[in-house]
Amino acid sequence: MSNLAQQMLIIDGLQADECDESVFAEWRKGGVTCVHMTCMEYTFDNTRAALSALSRWRRALRNHADLIRPARCADDILSAQAEGKTAVLLGFQNTLPLEDDLALAEIFYDLGIRVIQLTYNHQTLIGSGCQETVDTGLSLYGKRLVKEMNRLRMLVDTSHCGLKTTMDAIETSEAPIAVTHSNPASFASDVELTHRLKNDETLRALAKRGGMFGMALFPAMLPGGMRCTLQRFCDMVEHLVGIVGIEHVGLGTDFVWQRPLSYIKQVRTGRSTFDWAPVVPPKWPDWMKTPADFPRIIDELSGRGWKDDDIARFMGRNWLDFYRRVIG
Amino acid sequence: MSNLAQQMLIIDGLQADECDESVFAEWRKGGVTCVHMTCMEYTFDNTRAALSALSRWRRALRNHADLIRPARCADDILSAQAEGKTAVLLGFQNTLPLEDDLALAEIFYDLGIRVIQLTYNHQTLIGSGCQETVDTGLSLYGKRLVKEMNRLRMLVDTSHCGLKTTMDAIETSEAPIAVTHSNPASFASDVELTHRLKNDETLRALAKRGGMFGMALFPAMLPGGMRCTLQRFCDMVEHLVGIVGIEHVGLGTDFVWQRPLSYIKQVRTGRSTFDWAPVVPPKWPDWMKTPADFPRIIDELSGRGWKDDDIARFMGRNWLDFYRRVIG
Repeated sequence: MSNLAQQMLIIDGLQADECDESVFAEWRKGGVTCVHMTCMEYTFDNTRAALSALSRWRRALRNHADLIRPARCADDILSAQAEGKTAVLLGFQNTLPLEDDLALAEIFYDLGIRVIQLTYNHQTLIGSGCQETVDTGLSLYGKRLVKEMNRLRMLVDTSHCGLKTTMDAIETSEAPIAVTHSNPASFASDVELTHRLKNDETLRALAKRGGMFGMALFPAMLPGGMRCTLQRFCDMVEHLVGIVGIEHVGLGTDFVWQRPLSYIKQVRTGRSTFDWAPVVPPKWPDWMKTPADFPRIIDELSGRGWKDDDIARFMGRNWLDFYRRVIG
Repeated sequence: MSNLAQQMLIIDGLQADECDESVFAEWRKGGVTCVHMTCMEYTFDNTRAALSALSRWRRALRNHADLIRPARCADDILSAQAEGKTAVLLGFQNTLPLEDDLALAEIFYDLGIRVIQLTYNHQTLIGSGCQETVDTGLSLYGKRLVKEMNRLRMLVDTSHCGLKTTMDAIETSEAPIAVTHSNPASFASDVELTHRLKNDETLRALAKRGGMFGMALFPAMLPGGMRCTLQRFCDMVEHLVGIVGIEHVGLGTDFVWQRPLSYIKQVRTGRSTFDWAPVVPPKWPDWMKTPADFPRIIDELSGRGWKDDDIARFMGRNWLDFYRRVIG
């Protein structure tokens, strides 16, 4: 690892890995300071299932305290850096764990959840996902949930939401919100999951309200898929920085490291259909196979003449500052 | 009870009473042949809660077999009539019991559920309720659920759905659907819950596809509320018959007989808000205090010169014929 990488705070705006020691070890190899981690068995967990997923992470945080520690506020991330550990910020990628009950937001906050994505790909009680043909925006319950999350200082994530639901959340929330793992739609057209990208109007509205955008490395959201080069990825970073400014951009890889095939199978379509698409485990670009590859991005940006301070912002400090403002 | 009432098949298109012997006794007093009964603790039950509600009804059907019997098909209703019992057709007033899993429709069918209302008042994974300001129509999952219910021969109900979701269901379903408990919006403006009424366009589309409409006696859906007279209610019946034809109209009272105050409190807003409206138990018109009052409607329609055959259709035979076509 280069000296630059060693000094730098690295924060990943979203991973959805298996809760497993091998993942934590890989984070340490990559010098990752903090990961916002999806704390769900599947992205369709109800309350009961989400409590099990939460318990599993709590046990892991106890049993592997030499590698990881909980992140309940921004200072926990700095503590992790000082201790040479990775801070784990727990979140949900769906509001199904809340079921129909607004009161569960506070319950999950008390149990350590700090981020909730308002919908996954589909329509929920809260709003609409990016796969739906009709996007409602936020429902009555959805608007109340955003206000309740504001009160609790939970971070609102809209990565998988439809554009109207995303815009409603930006406008409804008193605190800035995040798109933790997506990419700009305006950069390239050779992307598999175009519905997962955000258009420039959304990006500008997000940044105008102080929001953060995490750039995904999930192959189906990369231009050219797994054949996307590190250079082209960094071109996309520069494209986005040109639209929203350096202070609103970070990483949000969407790693699904060590997840079983059953996860990959169900996560895209859930159980709302009997016609599951064939299961193709995502193949990542050669230059980004594990979280230990993060320093390669630092080296590429440095080679392009980026200022160290801007690289540091992109690699983690923007997320740290943002978490401090929103979560505390 | 008049001779006419004694000969007549009386079917109530929806009640949401407590599962209690006193209710069954009242049905017998009113000569009620069949009730489509909401089988939920609350209209926001998840899978687990719905299974408990179902179990409670199964025990009641065993323990009070002298008064009630299950209705799994149309012939069960005729058996109930021959045996002097009330047939209970079980249904859900929401799709939350299915959670995110399309496969649960078949599971609940096998357990005796024959009717599912696609949404209650709010947005769900399936579609939008009538209280939402934006109505999505059916979601991707919603369209698949309607097809699955068609395959299983379950009846689709859209009484509490928004108008777009109702229209989507009418158009998506291969079988006719029902609005089991609502009233026509075009009859009068002095109705409290105007968003629960259906406009003429919806009524005509429903009838054109062979659908059924159950007229509600719930005071907040009656013109003038609890002060609505039997005469004015029958004027509304005649108004609706003028729009859709006698063969598409029946009763769907929406009785919530013996339900505890906690049910009345939660059923309107659920747990998606902390600002519950003050609890006011509904007061029913003097001429319709219990299911035992049904014969009064027969007498009023007879006094207006309705043909016995038309009265018989309205009071129950339309529902019987419709259930036979849709459920089998």
